[in-house]
Amino acid sequence: MNVVEALKAAIRDIPDFPKPGIMFKDITPILLNAKLCNEITGYILNSISQPFDAIVGVESRGFLFGLTLANKAGVPFIPARKKGKLPGETKAVTYNLEYGTATIEIHKGHLKQGAKVLVHDDLLATGGTAKAAADLVKTLGAEVAAFSFLVDLSFLNGREILKEISENIYSIATY
Amino acid sequence: MNVVEALKAAIRDIPDFPKPGIMFKDITPILLNAKLCNEITGYILNSISQPFDAIVGVESRGFLFGLTLANKAGVPFIPARKKGKLPGETKAVTYNLEYGTATIEIHKGHLKQGAKVLVHDDLLATGGTAKAAADLVKTLGAEVAAFSFLVDLSFLNGREILKEISENIYSIATY
Repeated sequence: MNVVEALKAAIRDIPDFPKPGIMFKDITPILLNAKLCNEITGYILNSISQPFDAIVGVESRGFLFGLTLANKAGVPFIPARKKGKLPGETKAVTYNLEYGTATIEIHKGHLKQGAKVLVHDDLLATGGTAKAAADLVKTLGAEVAAFSFLVDLSFLNGREILKEISENIYSIATY
Repeated sequence: MNVVEALKAAIRDIPDFPKPGIMFKDITPILLNAKLCNEITGYILNSISQPFDAIVGVESRGFLFGLTLANKAGVPFIPARKKGKLPGETKAVTYNLEYGTATIEIHKGHLKQGAKVLVHDDLLATGGTAKAAADLVKTLGAEVAAFSFLVDLSFLNGREILKEISENIYSIATY
């Protein structure tokens, strides 16, 4: 089994979560398999052909592979956190959710001017959160080199809103 | 500079966060230094003399080094998440905070019966969250082999409540 097949085999479908009618893709079984995790990290880093010199990972599931990717690539990891969690001076962006809004923040001074950034999260759904993180990256004077995800729920068309920022959108498993 | 000194040098003190009178230890600058991150992971794994065959990391900052530790050690990573985030069937524990309560959960079936577990978080303060995670581990039929933290705020006496569960409490930097 290659990495893509192994990842798909590990993902668990949970019906009616977080609400009736939704089939949730649970990535937590992947984390039980250290060998597969290491293969996933290697696969993502090998796939991305654009140079990048920082990784932004979105709280909280983007912290999982975000840091392992950054440590293996030898680049800084910058967490994008929910409002009020980062203690230093931050730049914030508010974006729309299905109901209401959410705000994420990045520490000022942690992203170098002109840095080429890989924005990472575990799952691409509507793309709202990844777009917000990318907007923050740009506001802070850096640029988005690429996006990476473990899973792309392509029927939710997240790529459509992300490709306006960068066409370099990598995901291992697409549904 | 050794790892302990480098980690202490990277930590940033933020006064009056999250409220007046608190000096917050900000670990995010550590994440900017991939070499240091790799040294930290190696240091923790070399320090722990007890065998363990799974790591539980507490949402969300325990996800950062939790997964890198598990991947390097070659053991499963099991996230302990805030209430309502895990899609599968869970076991939950509610614990007291300074004001009110919090609940964390672990997926049933992801922690093997009798597994020896390393409970990891980035920072040990009062120990309430780590103790809750440890209680969950025990409720699920596994045992706590050790605790690991990047930082121990020893003046908050977190060790006192954890050592009733396991005396094996590792931290890199102690204040």
